[in-house]
Amino acid sequence: MTTALHCDPRLDLLLERVVDVPPELVWAAWTEPEHVKKWFTPAPWKTVDCEIDLRPGGIFRTVMRSPEGQEINNVGCLLEIVPNRKLVWTVALQPGYRPGNPTFDVPIFTAMILMEAYGKGTKYTALAMHKDEDSRNAHDRMGFRDGWGKALDQLVAHAKTM
Amino acid sequence: MTTALHCDPRLDLLLERVVDVPPELVWAAWTEPEHVKKWFTPAPWKTVDCEIDLRPGGIFRTVMRSPEGQEINNVGCLLEIVPNRKLVWTVALQPGYRPGNPTFDVPIFTAMILMEAYGKGTKYTALAMHKDEDSRNAHDRMGFRDGWGKALDQLVAHAKTM
Repeated sequence: MTTALHCDPRLDLLLERVVDVPPELVWAAWTEPEHVKKWFTPAPWKTVDCEIDLRPGGIFRTVMRSPEGQEINNVGCLLEIVPNRKLVWTVALQPGYRPGNPTFDVPIFTAMILMEAYGKGTKYTALAMHKDEDSRNAHDRMGFRDGWGKALDQLVAHAKTM
Repeated sequence: MTTALHCDPRLDLLLERVVDVPPELVWAAWTEPEHVKKWFTPAPWKTVDCEIDLRPGGIFRTVMRSPEGQEINNVGCLLEIVPNRKLVWTVALQPGYRPGNPTFDVPIFTAMILMEAYGKGTKYTALAMHKDEDSRNAHDRMGFRDGWGKALDQLVAHAKTM
C-alpha cells in the first residue's frame, strides 16, 4: 500500500520524526483508550478519559484535565483506519459523520497520523490540515509543534513500557 | 452487513422510497459520472460536469447549470463506500479530508445514501445530516424534499435506460 502525503505548507502543520518503537506499538498507543490516556495530553495536563470506536464514522473522544481541574472534552470522528499504517480523524465532523464544530476552542482540523517501519523503529508523521491560513496559523500559535512533539515523547516513553 | 440508520428528526432530512430498479443500477447511477450527469439536478437545471474518485477521501464534485447559464460548482468528500449498499459524502470536508466550507450557499450537510434489495427493486434511503436545527430547517426551506425526490424520479427514469 502506498500512502501519499499531500502537505500544503500554507494550510497544514506537520510533525515528522523517527522514533525507536515499532509501528505496532505506535498504533496500539493511538487506538486503545487505556494507552491513549497515558500520553495524549502534554504534561502537566492529563488525559482523564478516552473513548474510541475504531471504525469509519466512529467516535474519537478525549478528556483533558489541567492541574487546576479544568476539563476539555474533545469529540471527533474517525475517518480512515489502516492498522499499523494510517489513522485519520477530524473535529469537523461528529461521530456518525454529522457536521459539527469542535466542543472546545480549537481551529477546525483533520489529523492524519502515518507510521512506517524504519529499521527497528517507526517513521512517524502527524499532519494537521486546515481550511485556510488563518486556522493553520491560529493552531500554530496555540503551540502545535511543541504540544504534538511533547505528546509524541510521552507516547514513545509509554510504548516502551507496553 | 447491517447498516444502522441513526436519524434525528430535529437535525436530519430523510427521503425513503421503494423504487423499481435494482440496487446495482442505483449504485451505478450514483457513482459513475456519466450516469450522475443524467439525473442529479432537478430539471430545468442540468448537471453539466461530474468528477468522482470512488475511495474514502476522494472527490465528489458536480456542476449544476440553470437554464440562464448560472453555474454552481459543488465539491464534497467521499467518506464511506460499500458497493450496492451505502455511499456517504460530506460538504463539511474537501477532498483529502481537509476541512472546508461548501463552495456555494447551502447549509453544511453529510449525505448518507442507502440501498437495499426489495423484491425486484430497491428500498432507497437518502439522509441529510446537519449540525443544528437552523441548518436542517434552512435546507428544508431550500426544497430538500421536492428536490431530492425529483432527482430520484430522474435517477429511476435514467436507470431504466442503462
